[in-house]
Amino acid sequence: MPRKGKPVKRDELVLNSVGRPVPTALPQGREVRPYSGLHTPPVKKEGIGRPLRFSTPRENKVVEGIEDAIKRVELSDGMTISFHHHLRNGDLVVNTVVDAIHRMGIRDIKIFPSALFPVHEHLIPYIEDGTISWIEGSLNGPLGRFASEGGLLPHPVVLRTHGGRTRAIEAGDVVIDVAFLAASAADPAGNMTGAVGPSAFGAAGFAFADAWYARKVVVVTDNIVPYPCTPISIPSTCVDVVAKVDRIGDPEGIGWGTTQITRDPRMLMVARRVIKVLEAAGYLKNGFSFQAGAGGTSLAVVKFLGDYFKERGLVASFAMGGTTGYVVRMLDEGTLQAILDAQAFDLKAIESLTKNPNHMEVSHHHFGNPHTGGAITHQQTACFLGATEIDVDFNVNVNTHSDGYLLHGTGGHTDAAVGSEVTIITAPLIRGRIPVIRERVTTITTPGEAVDVVVTDHGVAVNPRREDLLKSLKKTDLPVVDIEDLKRKALSLVGKTIEPKLGDEVIAVVEYRTGEILDSVFRVLK
Amino acid sequence: MPRKGKPVKRDELVLNSVGRPVPTALPQGREVRPYSGLHTPPVKKEGIGRPLRFSTPRENKVVEGIEDAIKRVELSDGMTISFHHHLRNGDLVVNTVVDAIHRMGIRDIKIFPSALFPVHEHLIPYIEDGTISWIEGSLNGPLGRFASEGGLLPHPVVLRTHGGRTRAIEAGDVVIDVAFLAASAADPAGNMTGAVGPSAFGAAGFAFADAWYARKVVVVTDNIVPYPCTPISIPSTCVDVVAKVDRIGDPEGIGWGTTQITRDPRMLMVARRVIKVLEAAGYLKNGFSFQAGAGGTSLAVVKFLGDYFKERGLVASFAMGGTTGYVVRMLDEGTLQAILDAQAFDLKAIESLTKNPNHMEVSHHHFGNPHTGGAITHQQTACFLGATEIDVDFNVNVNTHSDGYLLHGTGGHTDAAVGSEVTIITAPLIRGRIPVIRERVTTITTPGEAVDVVVTDHGVAVNPRREDLLKSLKKTDLPVVDIEDLKRKALSLVGKTIEPKLGDEVIAVVEYRTGEILDSVFRVLK
Repeated sequence: MPRKGKPVKRDELVLNSVGRPVPTALPQGREVRPYSGLHTPPVKKEGIGRPLRFSTPRENKVVEGIEDAIKRVELSDGMTISFHHHLRNGDLVVNTVVDAIHRMGIRDIKIFPSALFPVHEHLIPYIEDGTISWIEGSLNGPLGRFASEGGLLPHPVVLRTHGGRTRAIEAGDVVIDVAFLAASAADPAGNMTGAVGPSAFGAAGFAFADAWYARKVVVVTDNIVPYPCTPISIPSTCVDVVAKVDRIGDPEGIGWGTTQITRDPRMLMVARRVIKVLEAAGYLKNGFSFQAGAGGTSLAVVKFLGDYFKERGLVASFAMGGTTGYVVRMLDEGTLQAILDAQAFDLKAIESLTKNPNHMEVSHHHFGNPHTGGAITHQQTACFLGATEIDVDFNVNVNTHSDGYLLHGTGGHTDAAVGSEVTIITAPLIRGRIPVIRERVTTITTPGEAVDVVVTDHGVAVNPRREDLLKSLKKTDLPVVDIEDLKRKALSLVGKTIEPKLGDEVIAVVEYRTGEILDSVFRVLK
Repeated sequence: MPRKGKPVKRDELVLNSVGRPVPTALPQGREVRPYSGLHTPPVKKEGIGRPLRFSTPRENKVVEGIEDAIKRVELSDGMTISFHHHLRNGDLVVNTVVDAIHRMGIRDIKIFPSALFPVHEHLIPYIEDGTISWIEGSLNGPLGRFASEGGLLPHPVVLRTHGGRTRAIEAGDVVIDVAFLAASAADPAGNMTGAVGPSAFGAAGFAFADAWYARKVVVVTDNIVPYPCTPISIPSTCVDVVAKVDRIGDPEGIGWGTTQITRDPRMLMVARRVIKVLEAAGYLKNGFSFQAGAGGTSLAVVKFLGDYFKERGLVASFAMGGTTGYVVRMLDEGTLQAILDAQAFDLKAIESLTKNPNHMEVSHHHFGNPHTGGAITHQQTACFLGATEIDVDFNVNVNTHSDGYLLHGTGGHTDAAVGSEVTIITAPLIRGRIPVIRERVTTITTPGEAVDVVVTDHGVAVNPRREDLLKSLKKTDLPVVDIEDLKRKALSLVGKTIEPKLGDEVIAVVEYRTGEILDSVFRVLK
């Protein structure tokens, strides 16, 4: 089935405030606004309403399997369905649901996941045969490659931050017809959690906005428990159907990709330099708060931070998770007062959530939505985040590689960077024969205005707007350099850069957390 | 200032499906529907949207005192403000806020509390001088008496169940301009709780719907804690301003009125009979769940229930609170698996909430809203509730006394009665010279269709629609009687009943939990 709509082409784009070409309308059927700055208020005064439901005594929402659930919620052609990605590369729910949709002959489905992983490469035939007509969500790996080569055209993938996705749901930019929410335990009324059970995945932060606003909500679980589910993450008030399946996924797959500490000596040095930067700038004291990304270098920073606080008898205030065992260690050792947890990155994080009352589950709405009253990221002292590319304006790319391929979602990168008092990007100067520090990033994920310090194995660059930091760091033995120097050094090491061969069609847009369009990603010509 | 609008009079009323005269429109400015049955679906498909807020990094929402908060949220003439009543008769927030409103010359304010108590008699001069123009909420004691004598005319007080109030908020029947939410701990971003701090009041179940849907939310606290507040009951995402005050109230006032176990030997006998009824009907087994009201007899039932389960090594599933030390005892002794807690009735309940992970805070939306996907009350096995009057159709009155005075709110009475598998009403046959069992209740709070058994000191009456129960109970030594016999017995004991002298104006309406009007309360002529 040919997909409806015309691709957005390069010559239709307008330049936004950071000089990037972006569309003003999407073939998905809605207008969009060009990025105009870090902080812009909501366009609308209020969000969409949640569906009212009719509840009667002793109702039992359990059905066997996904097909019955699909019938019960009357999923039909053209509808939009959503998923959370707490099981990451161990998830079985997305594939199981779309298999059932395909078997039932339902077509033209729009997929609105928080993120998809390599395991979801399984969806490609369904994109090709018209079962799926567009995807708005993070694409990690094969599906991103498929999109880059035009597989989802004419519809651009819309890449959102974790906070921005909840904003889009609440504002009604995307209306979810049916949310399919994996639960590691649920009771027959639909109270559910990810915290306990054989397939426990920890905090269910992504699921809250979908549960609240989707027209219909199906809880998918392999573990039905007697009423009431304990703990309750999402209440029965949001749930229409509880679908019993054999298995929602493999929690071992949660640790996919980026949740092991780095063993690269260059990056361990970078991590140590981050600690020195924070120390020199006076941030490392009681009440310090932070967010660590899932990357191996960020994990090393948390490890060293834990050591630092322990050695000096200091106590940090809170860590915002993506939670790992390194953060849990700080909580357990008393060098951290609280973990605010929206997503687990390893099994230790899952275990701690149910055991320590100072380890609190929060929604991604609370985590990073800029159009709600007080995102957690807006209260953080520091964040340490990775990058595939960084440019001389401190813009950061985590979505595409330098060959133009879309291979990663945004995650909480931008939410954390914009919110934190000090945002530190860690990266090696070059990866293989590819310069990481460069004149222009292939794609802007996080605007340079939100980035304070870039720490590499070849030197530390400070955003000129942070004169205070520059002054502090110059008093240390840290190799403080101009970012232009890092760019030149990278280029000299690799000899020359290879420009990607790009087509004219927009295969993805980077939607900034406020809903404005920050950048376009173009088709890669093979 | 004369209040706008004409009073609703008796001759304008229509009869609803239980034969009660009710209005079809309120001077408050909206149409209402007559009661048509226990279970009616929502009129609208979706609820109102919540306000979008613009959040920027490192914002601090703290202001000193209520006046600054009122200025910050731009409270003005004619607006509707709301409060929760977790501090019950110990609350200082309502009076403090309305004092400030009066000082600032703001007029024509509509008050939408979950309930008001004797301590709020303080508001009467403000009703008289036009600062307050109507109240929709439970009135316990002096304010009810004041309303009964016409003090709030032309506007009827709208009495709602706990679940029905959240339904009304979500459906937009009442739009809250500013919610003032007492918190015993809050951080500068507005994350708040009632669980900890010197004025801790426990679960904050009433506050959730107001926090979610009010156009502006002011957290009022005497205890600002460093970010993040631990635990977080209501997140910063809902909060505009944090107002620091000297004191939000006296937690000792939470126990006001009805949270002590009865010492009346007649009512202790009634409580024992309740256990026998439940036992005979086969309900007392593993997995049993229940809700106890706050009355002294209900507390005695819970006490005896705890003893029964302990002696027999049985384990109940969950108790829905209004939570007391008697329920906490069961959780601690292992005869109860979980407490779902929306409101504390004593200090032991407050203490347990933070200590036991199986003691979970829930919203009143989750508790009893019939137009959301799965109220907790709809999953209960049993409830044991009090009454001021019960009639031969098993209708129950808890709002008015037999002299016609409106003196009590509905609480969760109707939500629990309608939801539970077995609903038991406990009462003495007579109180003083007043028959409790009578031909017709003065006011219907809970329709007889939702009531299964009436247990009195003079006999046990079973609703004829529960033939199964009648059969089981007749096999026991319980004094099973016809409710007509109880009525006659009551009348014979008191000699004759005194009819109240009522006027024509409707001073209050009982709004059933689905939003339909169940009954009208008339002016009392002195």
